[in-house]
Amino acid sequence: MDDAMESGNLGPYQDRPRIFPNMRTKPYTPLIFRVIKRINVRILFVLLLLGLGAIFYIGASTSPIIVFVFSVCIISFVLSMYLTKWVLAKDEGPPEMVQISDAIRDGAEGFFRTQYGTISKMAVLLAVIILSIYMFRSTTPQQESSGLGRSMSAYVTVVSFLLGALCSGIAGYVGMWVSVRANVRVSSAARRSAREALQIAVRAGGFSAMVVVGLAVIGVAVLYSTLYVWLEVDSPGSMKVTDLPLLLVGYGFGASFVALFAQLGGGIYTKAADVGADLVGKVEQGIPEDDPRNPAVIADLVGDNVGDCAARGADLFESIAAEIISAMILGGTMAQRCKIEDPSGFILFPLVVHSFDLVVSSVGILSIRSKRDAGAIGVVEDPMLILQKGYSVTIVLAVITFGLSTRWMLYTEQAPLAWLNFALCGLVGILTAYVFVWITKYYTDYKHEPVRTLALSSSTGHGTNIIAGISLGLESTALPVLVISVSVISAFWLGHTSGLVDEAGNSTGGLFGTAVATMGMLSTAAYVLTMDMFGPIADNAGGIVEMSQQPESVREITDVLDAVGNTTKATTKGFAIGSAALASFLLFSAYMDEVAAFSHAAFKQVDIAIPEVFVGGLLGSMLIFLFSAWACSAVGRTAQEVVNEVRRQFIERPGIMDYKEKPDYGRCVSIVASASLREMIKPGALAIVSPIVVGFVFRMVGYYTGHPLLGAKVVAAMLMFATVSGILMALFLNTAGGAWDNAKKYIETGALGGKGSDCHKAAVTGDTVGDPFKDTAGPSLHVLIKMLATITLVMAPVFL
Amino acid sequence: MDDAMESGNLGPYQDRPRIFPNMRTKPYTPLIFRVIKRINVRILFVLLLLGLGAIFYIGASTSPIIVFVFSVCIISFVLSMYLTKWVLAKDEGPPEMVQISDAIRDGAEGFFRTQYGTISKMAVLLAVIILSIYMFRSTTPQQESSGLGRSMSAYVTVVSFLLGALCSGIAGYVGMWVSVRANVRVSSAARRSAREALQIAVRAGGFSAMVVVGLAVIGVAVLYSTLYVWLEVDSPGSMKVTDLPLLLVGYGFGASFVALFAQLGGGIYTKAADVGADLVGKVEQGIPEDDPRNPAVIADLVGDNVGDCAARGADLFESIAAEIISAMILGGTMAQRCKIEDPSGFILFPLVVHSFDLVVSSVGILSIRSKRDAGAIGVVEDPMLILQKGYSVTIVLAVITFGLSTRWMLYTEQAPLAWLNFALCGLVGILTAYVFVWITKYYTDYKHEPVRTLALSSSTGHGTNIIAGISLGLESTALPVLVISVSVISAFWLGHTSGLVDEAGNSTGGLFGTAVATMGMLSTAAYVLTMDMFGPIADNAGGIVEMSQQPESVREITDVLDAVGNTTKATTKGFAIGSAALASFLLFSAYMDEVAAFSHAAFKQVDIAIPEVFVGGLLGSMLIFLFSAWACSAVGRTAQEVVNEVRRQFIERPGIMDYKEKPDYGRCVSIVASASLREMIKPGALAIVSPIVVGFVFRMVGYYTGHPLLGAKVVAAMLMFATVSGILMALFLNTAGGAWDNAKKYIETGALGGKGSDCHKAAVTGDTVGDPFKDTAGPSLHVLIKMLATITLVMAPVFL
Repeated sequence: MDDAMESGNLGPYQDRPRIFPNMRTKPYTPLIFRVIKRINVRILFVLLLLGLGAIFYIGASTSPIIVFVFSVCIISFVLSMYLTKWVLAKDEGPPEMVQISDAIRDGAEGFFRTQYGTISKMAVLLAVIILSIYMFRSTTPQQESSGLGRSMSAYVTVVSFLLGALCSGIAGYVGMWVSVRANVRVSSAARRSAREALQIAVRAGGFSAMVVVGLAVIGVAVLYSTLYVWLEVDSPGSMKVTDLPLLLVGYGFGASFVALFAQLGGGIYTKAADVGADLVGKVEQGIPEDDPRNPAVIADLVGDNVGDCAARGADLFESIAAEIISAMILGGTMAQRCKIEDPSGFILFPLVVHSFDLVVSSVGILSIRSKRDAGAIGVVEDPMLILQKGYSVTIVLAVITFGLSTRWMLYTEQAPLAWLNFALCGLVGILTAYVFVWITKYYTDYKHEPVRTLALSSSTGHGTNIIAGISLGLESTALPVLVISVSVISAFWLGHTSGLVDEAGNSTGGLFGTAVATMGMLSTAAYVLTMDMFGPIADNAGGIVEMSQQPESVREITDVLDAVGNTTKATTKGFAIGSAALASFLLFSAYMDEVAAFSHAAFKQVDIAIPEVFVGGLLGSMLIFLFSAWACSAVGRTAQEVVNEVRRQFIERPGIMDYKEKPDYGRCVSIVASASLREMIKPGALAIVSPIVVGFVFRMVGYYTGHPLLGAKVVAAMLMFATVSGILMALFLNTAGGAWDNAKKYIETGALGGKGSDCHKAAVTGDTVGDPFKDTAGPSLHVLIKMLATITLVMAPVFL
Repeated sequence: MDDAMESGNLGPYQDRPRIFPNMRTKPYTPLIFRVIKRINVRILFVLLLLGLGAIFYIGASTSPIIVFVFSVCIISFVLSMYLTKWVLAKDEGPPEMVQISDAIRDGAEGFFRTQYGTISKMAVLLAVIILSIYMFRSTTPQQESSGLGRSMSAYVTVVSFLLGALCSGIAGYVGMWVSVRANVRVSSAARRSAREALQIAVRAGGFSAMVVVGLAVIGVAVLYSTLYVWLEVDSPGSMKVTDLPLLLVGYGFGASFVALFAQLGGGIYTKAADVGADLVGKVEQGIPEDDPRNPAVIADLVGDNVGDCAARGADLFESIAAEIISAMILGGTMAQRCKIEDPSGFILFPLVVHSFDLVVSSVGILSIRSKRDAGAIGVVEDPMLILQKGYSVTIVLAVITFGLSTRWMLYTEQAPLAWLNFALCGLVGILTAYVFVWITKYYTDYKHEPVRTLALSSSTGHGTNIIAGISLGLESTALPVLVISVSVISAFWLGHTSGLVDEAGNSTGGLFGTAVATMGMLSTAAYVLTMDMFGPIADNAGGIVEMSQQPESVREITDVLDAVGNTTKATTKGFAIGSAALASFLLFSAYMDEVAAFSHAAFKQVDIAIPEVFVGGLLGSMLIFLFSAWACSAVGRTAQEVVNEVRRQFIERPGIMDYKEKPDYGRCVSIVASASLREMIKPGALAIVSPIVVGFVFRMVGYYTGHPLLGAKVVAAMLMFATVSGILMALFLNTAGGAWDNAKKYIETGALGGKGSDCHKAAVTGDTVGDPFKDTAGPSLHVLIKMLATITLVMAPVFL
């Protein structure tokens, strides 16, 4: 066996051109990188300094709050650079690890380039469409009076769309860039110390988390202050600052547009490779996960990077961007209604919250450090405890800073105690996050009843395992919905009773209360993202260790890290869907404000007793089902291609199983890459096209039946029903997938017959089914929910 | 083998007390049967005549339309008695068939008695609760002025609730009664001629279909005319006829209450037995379906009767009852608004439509007759063609009679052409039914692409089969939703432009248009139900043939009938969910009318932009997910008990496989029976309790926050979101289940490796998962959707 390994040792990695042939032959570098590469480094540095200066100048002209936000973001960028340097300074281990890691990196970067090439082409096309739509739209009286005519508003929207798309792409790239470099360093460190391996994974995750959150914040802040200065906001005769956030919606849409395709493409890639590898490797041939004999194993490891790291980076980026912008819109509208003298506190509040998020999360990340190491590899401290300790630090600090920022930003003499109510709203949000994470853990951790029951049901076969898993997933939607219901209503009422009233004396703070709760929930986003990014890095490190045939003790360390990574991944999904659910209400309130602003008419109600509006709702829910169907079937189809390829290789090269022949990893990588790019188009296009078509069709119906605003109302119902169904479907998919995964892991610990038993085989089937659920369709739905909200915000002119 | 069979020949059937021991020892006969049994036959006959006379007298005092309805119903009862006599006159075949059939009948009737015992206790409890709620409710001004005080309205509601529950129970009983008698006659006839076997199954199904539809119609008609005469409606100073239908809601609720538990209990029973039998028999032991060596086989056959026949009877009964009543309410409201002189046409229209339904369906059923039989058993005409020919006859007649009845009932001088618009609405409904059936066939028939792709995905393993099936199911929701959207909107606009206007000149016919479309869709309900009932009878006949070891040629005939039965079952599910979807809009319009009537306030809008209302929607959708989860997991748990029992028997009695020992069928029957009775309570209680609790809680919230009608609005949103999610979920579950079933059948025809291949095993897993989807959770959701509507109608006083 060892002989065979040495003689044919990892040949395919040295034989580079065979990996990803179609990408190697046609290297694609985005224009912007090519331009930057040609510029001298000193000139670049000067340009950077000049840019920074300009940004600070603009910020200072807007508001001191913006200067604060800029400073925090730039400090956190510097910190993240320190983290990268620290990670990159670690050794990459022996050559066999480096070779594997290089193969993974090539595969991931190749796929990323092609994928983002496709996405950027679609983004440009969409930008042109948006431009032409806005050229023919009507503008609000305020905008006209402030000189922001039709073409200006078109350019602003398109530029912010492209900026959002670009930043979202960078966020994704950064996530992947660091993970393909950190994985091998974690594997290498695992040979020395568990604690060091953990620290590298955490800091690598921390780096991309800081960049993602920082980019989202600074992007919005730059856009906001540029528009503020350029449009001479708040000077007599020009637009009011409370209307400014409405111009930012393009940024959110750009971000979610890119995130949707990144998540879809990456999600299909990672799970098709995983399912394909498992079905033949584990089930048919009975070889362990990440075994080098499996031809699909490199594709599987590449998938972790493009599916989990890159996609999650883009996903969190758009979540934060969309929620910041919606909260700013709501804050602006409320401040205007209440005639608050200085509305900038209410508008800029979300930016400040996320600046503090960066600060407290950095503290949390840095609090995880290698202390005088116990030395002995065997004495592994539970990494989950270490991560949770860091999280506790972060959350305590977040509560304090959140309280401070509400006092700083939301204090107004009109209602001196309003900030206290809003601070409580924030607490509601933080608590919701906590409870969500707890519920997700309850349903997906094998320490608890549900997963144990699921594992038990595997003992009666594949069928009962699937039935039990689906039931578990469907059931797991109940508690989160109850929690969300309670939080939405209590945050609304805390806001409502804050004492903020409009001119007629009506309470107006309700919606802003829910917005603040969402902000509270996201006030530790950077730390949560760090824990999430930790997962795929640890997973990859485990794969490299396994493939490079390291000793058992090293594998044990990476196995523990991998298991912890699975738990953090599952819980952060709970967090993501919780924030999406809480944000949903604020996203469509923003939509209604937008419609009211552009239609010059009150738009306060979405009455589902009108048949067309009800039909809109029906179509919205249907969209979720169809989208999930297409996302899952894309994985199924691609996985079948992988299965056929792997089976073919096992048949044509019978020596693979005895380590006598090398599998052709490259072919699997390239099959998965091209298939997932092809498959991401259909569900993605569905998500983008259907709200536009529905809105336009019903606008026409409304026009001919004398029903004004019908298109906008139908789209609103579509959005709301899609959000509700999307939340439920995503909860179902994520939880069922996580539970199946852990039921399998539970059996692998030796329960119910352990590895290789019939019970284990049934559990592997469940895990296979769960893969596209939890890593393709589920996370794509998170993005979809928010993208629907931003697309309706941007495309509102089509429906009016 | 034969020796063993003869010596131990079917011992367990003769050894009666061992079958269903717990039921035999404590025979339970409902009070009403015990009373009837004691009365002399002649006295009964005289009582019947007197009753008939009274009914006709009351009918004549109400409206000539009612007399027409009564006459049609009674004629159809007479016809159905002729059909039973015809079926019962057929021979029961050789003793081995009779013995098996007796065992099935005992099991089914025993379960039915216990199940309906439980249901009737719950119904009485609920009646007491309703009574006390109504005693404390407020009444409408009209009701007070007409002398219909608080206690009177309470009694009327409770009595109609109990009547609805009783009739629903009878409908279920009749379905089962005939099927346990027809099954053996079909098997026996299959030995002689395929055509005769088909005819027996159709006529047996036709008998219960006529009784079910007839009961629904005559129940409503009797209740309506009794109240009309008793309350002296339309005489000066008393209540108006247009308000009368609101008093009938209790009948619909009673019907859906019983149907829900009948469907849940029966659905869990049938699928737990089926899944349990398949998992051990087919997958582990590799013996064919319905093999006498399988200890769970009798339980499986019993399940077809209690799950498919009894439950579907109760289900269709409540569908028709709920839809008749809702349409009557809408007709009454509209007639009142338009000040139509004689509103009885609009109110009684649904009763007339279903009377014609009985007539045209009888013609369709009788059109299937044994012609001069070709004699040779081999020459089997495709039974599907025969059934479809009958359906074509029915549908052509239905179009004609529907047009006539719109002209007869809906002609008004105010809008002379309105009836034509409504006739077109009916046509929309009939077309919708057609398209729905076509779509269901496309997604579930292996002649078409989707099921073939599904079958192909089985070749890569269990996991890809499940992923593909779930994707297929999720995807199959799209087309039906588009069809429903188009029909709701077009029927609404046809009604809207009918020329019917209220005093202010606003068009008012829209909602009634959708009601007429629903009636159109249901205008062939009796024939569709016949086709549906045909399925389980044929299935059972096949089981009896298999178990009594008949020659191959006989099995071939029953196999063909069984396959046709599967198709008709799947398509009628499409029909049922289509009508539920179309009816949903009319059910909650009725709810809003009801709330408006009782709250003395306008209730025209359900504004989901209010946080509490939105939360209601979220909870409604969640209810569907949780209900489906509990329904599926009930089957999973019960099936596991069956699997363990069957495995135990195979281990403890190793002679079973060689026909040397008798399996203990009775134990399986009794395990499934007690488990399914236990398991039906949780989902059923959820469905009933949650809307009441949500309504009450938000009524309180509304009370303390100064928000009138909040409870009613939240419940309305809950109802609408639950309806939308329920339609989608039911479509998903039904289609996925049907497709898995047929993918397996397709492979069994020899494709992709045929029976026994790995591909077939994967397909069997899919079929197992699909079983609770398509026969427990899916059909229960149909009932749930309508029960939610009727429960909110009846429980409205709690929310106000």
